[in-house]
Amino acid sequence: MQQLANRLYHKTIKRWMPFWRDVSTQNNSLEKLSLEPVLNANHEKVLLTWMDACLQSDGGEVAARGRAAELGRHFLGLNDAGRVRFLSLMADHYNVDEPRLTIATKAWLAADAGERVSLEAELRSALEPPRMKLLTQFNELPQGIKFLVDMREQLLRLGKEHPNLVPLEADLKRLLSAWFDVGLLQMEEINWRSSAELLEKLIAYEAVHAIKDWNDLKNRLDSDRRCFAFFHPNMPDEPLIFVEVALVKGMASNVQELLDETAPLEDISLADTAIFYSISNAQAGLAGISFGNFLIKRVVKQLQQEFTQLTAFATLSPIPDFCRWLDTIDVEKESALLDEGLALRSPEHMQKMAIHYLGKEKQKRNPNHARDPVAHFHLSNGAQIERLNWMADTSDKGIKQSNGMMVNYLYQLPHIESRIQDYSTKGKVALSAKIEKQLNI
Amino acid sequence: MQQLANRLYHKTIKRWMPFWRDVSTQNNSLEKLSLEPVLNANHEKVLLTWMDACLQSDGGEVAARGRAAELGRHFLGLNDAGRVRFLSLMADHYNVDEPRLTIATKAWLAADAGERVSLEAELRSALEPPRMKLLTQFNELPQGIKFLVDMREQLLRLGKEHPNLVPLEADLKRLLSAWFDVGLLQMEEINWRSSAELLEKLIAYEAVHAIKDWNDLKNRLDSDRRCFAFFHPNMPDEPLIFVEVALVKGMASNVQELLDETAPLEDISLADTAIFYSISNAQAGLAGISFGNFLIKRVVKQLQQEFTQLTAFATLSPIPDFCRWLDTIDVEKESALLDEGLALRSPEHMQKMAIHYLGKEKQKRNPNHARDPVAHFHLSNGAQIERLNWMADTSDKGIKQSNGMMVNYLYQLPHIESRIQDYSTKGKVALSAKIEKQLNI
Amino acid sequence: MQQLANRLYHKTIKRWMPFWRDVSTQNNSLEKLSLEPVLNANHEKVLLTWMDACLQSDGGEVAARGRAAELGRHFLGLNDAGRVRFLSLMADHYNVDEPRLTIATKAWLAADAGERVSLEAELRSALEPPRMKLLTQFNELPQGIKFLVDMREQLLRLGKEHPNLVPLEADLKRLLSAWFDVGLLQMEEINWRSSAELLEKLIAYEAVHAIKDWNDLKNRLDSDRRCFAFFHPNMPDEPLIFVEVALVKGMASNVQELLDETAPLEDISLADTAIFYSISNAQAGLAGISFGNFLIKRVVKQLQQEFTQLTAFATLSPIPDFCRWLDTIDVEKESALLDEGLALRSPEHMQKMAIHYLGKEKQKRNPNHARDPVAHFHLSNGAQIERLNWMADTSDKGIKQSNGMMVNYLYQLPHIESRIQDYSTKGKVALSAKIEKQLNI
Amino acid sequence: MQQLANRLYHKTIKRWMPFWRDVSTQNNSLEKLSLEPVLNANHEKVLLTWMDACLQSDGGEVAARGRAAELGRHFLGLNDAGRVRFLSLMADHYNVDEPRLTIATKAWLAADAGERVSLEAELRSALEPPRMKLLTQFNELPQGIKFLVDMREQLLRLGKEHPNLVPLEADLKRLLSAWFDVGLLQMEEINWRSSAELLEKLIAYEAVHAIKDWNDLKNRLDSDRRCFAFFHPNMPDEPLIFVEVALVKGMASNVQELLDETAPLEDISLADTAIFYSISNAQAGLAGISFGNFLIKRVVKQLQQEFTQLTAFATLSPIPDFCRWLDTIDVEKESALLDEGLALRSPEHMQKMAIHYLGKEKQKRNPNHARDPVAHFHLSNGAQIERLNWMADTSDKGIKQSNGMMVNYLYQLPHIESRIQDYSTKGKVALSAKIEKQLNI
Repeated sequence: MQQLANRLYHKTIKRWMPFWRDVSTQNNSLEKLSLEPVLNANHEKVLLTWMDACLQSDGGEVAARGRAAELGRHFLGLNDAGRVRFLSLMADHYNVDEPRLTIATKAWLAADAGERVSLEAELRSALEPPRMKLLTQFNELPQGIKFLVDMREQLLRLGKEHPNLVPLEADLKRLLSAWFDVGLLQMEEINWRSSAELLEKLIAYEAVHAIKDWNDLKNRLDSDRRCFAFFHPNMPDEPLIFVEVALVKGMASNVQELLDETAPLEDISLADTAIFYSISNAQAGLAGISFGNFLIKRVVKQLQQEFTQLTAFATLSPIPDFCRWLDTIDVEKESALLDEGLALRSPEHMQKMAIHYLGKEKQKRNPNHARDPVAHFHLSNGAQIERLNWMADTSDKGIKQSNGMMVNYLYQLPHIESRIQDYSTKGKVALSAKIEKQLNI
Repeated sequence: MQQLANRLYHKTIKRWMPFWRDVSTQNNSLEKLSLEPVLNANHEKVLLTWMDACLQSDGGEVAARGRAAELGRHFLGLNDAGRVRFLSLMADHYNVDEPRLTIATKAWLAADAGERVSLEAELRSALEPPRMKLLTQFNELPQGIKFLVDMREQLLRLGKEHPNLVPLEADLKRLLSAWFDVGLLQMEEINWRSSAELLEKLIAYEAVHAIKDWNDLKNRLDSDRRCFAFFHPNMPDEPLIFVEVALVKGMASNVQELLDETAPLEDISLADTAIFYSISNAQAGLAGISFGNFLIKRVVKQLQQEFTQLTAFATLSPIPDFCRWLDTIDVEKESALLDEGLALRSPEHMQKMAIHYLGKEKQKRNPNHARDPVAHFHLSNGAQIERLNWMADTSDKGIKQSNGMMVNYLYQLPHIESRIQDYSTKGKVALSAKIEKQLNI
Repeated sequence: MQQLANRLYHKTIKRWMPFWRDVSTQNNSLEKLSLEPVLNANHEKVLLTWMDACLQSDGGEVAARGRAAELGRHFLGLNDAGRVRFLSLMADHYNVDEPRLTIATKAWLAADAGERVSLEAELRSALEPPRMKLLTQFNELPQGIKFLVDMREQLLRLGKEHPNLVPLEADLKRLLSAWFDVGLLQMEEINWRSSAELLEKLIAYEAVHAIKDWNDLKNRLDSDRRCFAFFHPNMPDEPLIFVEVALVKGMASNVQELLDETAPLEDISLADTAIFYSISNAQAGLAGISFGNFLIKRVVKQLQQEFTQLTAFATLSPIPDFCRWLDTIDVEKESALLDEGLALRSPEHMQKMAIHYLGKEKQKRNPNHARDPVAHFHLSNGAQIERLNWMADTSDKGIKQSNGMMVNYLYQLPHIESRIQDYSTKGKVALSAKIEKQLNI
Repeated sequence: MQQLANRLYHKTIKRWMPFWRDVSTQNNSLEKLSLEPVLNANHEKVLLTWMDACLQSDGGEVAARGRAAELGRHFLGLNDAGRVRFLSLMADHYNVDEPRLTIATKAWLAADAGERVSLEAELRSALEPPRMKLLTQFNELPQGIKFLVDMREQLLRLGKEHPNLVPLEADLKRLLSAWFDVGLLQMEEINWRSSAELLEKLIAYEAVHAIKDWNDLKNRLDSDRRCFAFFHPNMPDEPLIFVEVALVKGMASNVQELLDETAPLEDISLADTAIFYSISNAQAGLAGISFGNFLIKRVVKQLQQEFTQLTAFATLSPIPDFCRWLDTIDVEKESALLDEGLALRSPEHMQKMAIHYLGKEKQKRNPNHARDPVAHFHLSNGAQIERLNWMADTSDKGIKQSNGMMVNYLYQLPHIESRIQDYSTKGKVALSAKIEKQLNI
């Protein structure tokens, strides 16, 4: 998937590059830099001069942004090693001005209550590293926002080996968090009438049940399905997150039927249940900036309006960490959950274990949070664990993750708020009567 | 103008209000608040509870934003006195947490260089007043961004008498500055094929040469004219700033001809000059967040592409503060600028005075900046003072401001950067040969 | 109104003319024709050569259409006298080929039943005057369809004095009837978000209650109003017919209230009645090609879907010929309709007369058809005469036409078909109980 | 291909059917007809009653069109045998009214010159079979135009075995010819940003070089390619005809390179030649209604504007009938074209034969027309035979049709008109110097 995404991205860049060249300033000393993918000491010196030039706006803000375009173009021509050097220049040279901040903090501490408020502005300003301006300036470019999102993706990756980049990544996250606030995003439906350019990205970005080919995709966009995504207005061709929904009669118990291209179309007028069977974040560079909970709730509202006959909104979700967890526990604990008459690791036993895992196991860091990440996502959004399904995902991935089991999480609008509260404050997990019974036997 | 703008705004609000009610949460204790336009102590208590509820997100972020919608709706129902109270609640109760900030500043000061970077995040976080979250939450609503822009307009107005509101206004400005960064805006052409809803706003917002009626407007959008504006993607029906351009042969010397509805259409293929004869900021709530310089330069680029025969880009601009300045100077100074043979305040003398005023008079606060605000705007964008025009705006306003005189500022792309630099660093004003001569006689 | 329409049209033409010149062929002998607005004999000879060239397609159909463009451009430069000559050339020279048609008719008559069908094609072909091809060829041009519609408008006007043009007008009508078949048209809503270019045309084309200015127009497009129009896909900026609807509580009894710009907005959620208070044909060149009945019924369907609470669909219609009819009848007849105790021409008497006129008076040409044209239109569409309203249109026009009276025609979906049938076959007029009572007293 | 097209069509129908049911009238006696796919005598009687009802509009035209919708829906439920019966009802029962036509023809013949024109209208009217109205009425339905286009496709197919259907097919062709006049069509670019729904149809409809899959399609829509199609405004999702163009340096000599998905992107700024390498009619139901010549010339204009550096516009075309022709000629003729030293059927000999075939062989029916249909198409559009290419299409189809050879036809704008004329009047074939030399050796 990442490979295809990369390929798409580089195509896009290729298309834009001539234009970028165009918007950058004419008297272009960077141009003289050989466009070798690695940087040597001399190159770095030139780059620093350019970065300085972007940050001073003696010649006007418009020109400064033009220079930022040139820098961006240069960055795109570098290989990974070159990019680490480029980013390190930004990370190492344009930090917070410590002397200024020292003065500001001391002034604030020394002030009395009445004066403090007016000193906070300088404190805030002193805390802003100069490179924030440089990062911001990239946004005016064609595809500039996508450029920054992808730069953060790289920072997240590179930061593991180059800790000096971490503060730069944090700065970029702050910038992107402001711009990608959920209130600025637009929810749009994606269907077979969407552009091939966009649909191709669904194939690339789908993270739960891989889309095999265009026929598989078409099946998922048929008239008994819905797909919705959030978009940022400055990245109109790039979904940020998308969810795939099947309109069915009764609660879907396995993903094989949903993805069967030869299955007949559902009669949509008989559907009573909306099954959210896949939700994928599409932009690795937006990690940690969440909008999944907003997307689910807006989709529920939208579907309620379009299909007044729907009575249930539920997911069909993987249990990604079940088998990993199973490997970590000892036989004793496992046996303790073994009912009389059940063979160890029999289907019945496995289901019992899975229900225990979902309902009882917690994160070490936070005893209120379910250990399974998908369970935690839906529980923290106010869903209830509704049903465990055996042989629900018989793909290799499904077997490997959870022995083929999947869960339905049920979203019941009137209870969502109280469940979120119970879960976030007390770690209480909402369970259907059936699950509760299974858990307690 | 403001009156019409208000009327439009209230129409819009009226249209949205039923919907807002809809998106707010159902169990709505605020609803019980009588919708009286003033607030009493009891109301304030209820409001504080609601504000608290928005800031804690125990019940989930989605619900919290729903509550913010309810608050926003309530705010719209208040009169000015009520709004002052409402805003004062936000300004007085959700300030920076001083104890936390004290700890953070001390920790940072005590840390050694290596540790400081990691402590900056907490310092930044502690500096963020809780009300920022509340302000942000309004954005998800329909017209939420416009709501915030207008809230800032009110804060700017009310802040003069209620200084406690100033820090809230500053917070809001920071938020809006991030969202209205020029790189996130879209430039669009406005013409007679635009919607009446949008065009009506040009009439309301035009700040330089008032648009008398729809015929006047139509004349300004005819085939020998162009109008461009910046838009924010979340406020698609609201121009942020717009500029009106006439395509003419030779440099326009007065605004009467440009605005004459009975004048024949120019043969656009003969035009060699683009005259920017009006530029208006449309959103008082975005005061201090500038994009005028970007708009002019983007428009120049756009026009160069569309009309390759254009050789000059110039303004026909008012001199808004000339007469006010004239009133302040003493006869002695005035006489010093009087050539032999010229009668005091004769046309020749007035022109000489105006050229002196534009080219030599500086702001007290900054000796590099021209005293006239329009002159300062164009000079700081790299324009040159090209020509002074007598009887160029014979409207009451024109006579009153500048004795009917106007200026052409000329934008010459190759010189823009150096002129910006010379002006910003040395206060050097670029002058045409003719003006220079007039200035030195 | 016609004046404004003309002005708009000529503006459009002006905008297109440079382009037309462009699409016409390069080696352009017509260009040599001085563009004088009148034609002399020599010009006519050149034109005939050109028309011949369009009809032979030796050099290809694409080139022939290019020549038609040139002819069209030339036509637009002519004054009325010139146009009569131009059109007369087409009318007189490119008629049905009589010898060919003679042969074809004789062949058909001589053939036996089995052969006749195969001879019909030639008969049809022989009946097609060559100029049909020329007319068709204009359509490929920008605004070509509008050009033809307007040419027919002129033919209708000029045909009164120049009967030789009548067959040409009939040919054009046949062509336009095929292209403007109602199934090819699109119904669209017009509102304040429509383009000024389109809205301006509503002001120009409104034929029932003149639109005074943009404020009047805006009031008619407010949130308690609806306006719908038919459009042809090749004339996207030109409405063909449009209807204005008010959503009100109870059946509107006068037009003054509907058009009162100061009246408060109706609460649309309380509206139970849709009042069609104005329906205007916008293209004089499409006279005799009707789509009014289709528009009304599609609008009813649309409104039913959008506002499920609507229970009545009615018009508030003028009685355009009442006073003219009143002038024609003699006192005796008038007195016969005078009840005891009623003063002649008292309000009560006038209403009695109007009800009689609407319900009983028939066209001389067709005794099934109501004499009043508006009454005939609605009755033939299946409406019922519901109520007569006194002082319902107090404008000069309203007083002059019908002493200020107006009628509500009621459309009741379940009865429409049978009423159409009763009216068209028996001339039976559907009446409300109240009207029936008034009629029979 | 046809299979996929059918499948797409039936999907579309399925989607629309519920809606059709909705627009048809409520009191629906047809509904009682069991929806068996065959018709019995009783069914036919019911259908005739319905057809009669559509043709009389006693109950109004709107209702009549509603009934036509019901008929259309019924038709779609029938199998081929049923459809033959349905269409035969229309073909046999709603013919021209012979007695009326007899009277009209006699009247016309008997009239003197002055009267004849006024009698032509009745003659024309009498020649119109009543079923024309029925056919027209289908167009108001959703997808009604596509319904008629597909009905003609079936009539063309069924007409071979059921000659009674031929006149109905001819009527439908007349109707469609008027509606699909080239001046009413819109040319649009198709690219990777087009909807998947539309792109899928390119795969289905491509008739020259089959599109293997979505990757093949994407390659044909890459940035060094262009694809244009004509659309009818009432069939926005259905291309009528489309052409695929490659922008290359030098004249492309084989199709393998053009279709090679692994080939690098061409640098479009270096391209000097536009190669039209595939042109496909997409609607079998529009057979005989031509727009290919218009499409090519509009595309040339469009490309000239977008890429001013283009100097040549040429095709890379198949020679579909070469091998078929080769099979028909006798050895003697073949040998006559054999130069000394050339082996029979050697590559050199085959090329000589092909050039002879293209340049000299004529249709039996028309000695001015080239025998090869593709050659005839381009020659009649004013192109020149520029070059023969060996091993230019090595697909099975290419080998089978023309031993792998293809031709470049060159469109030179200044010569197009004269070449069309020479070809259409004298059968003169335009040849490049090289081809001329090869032909004459």
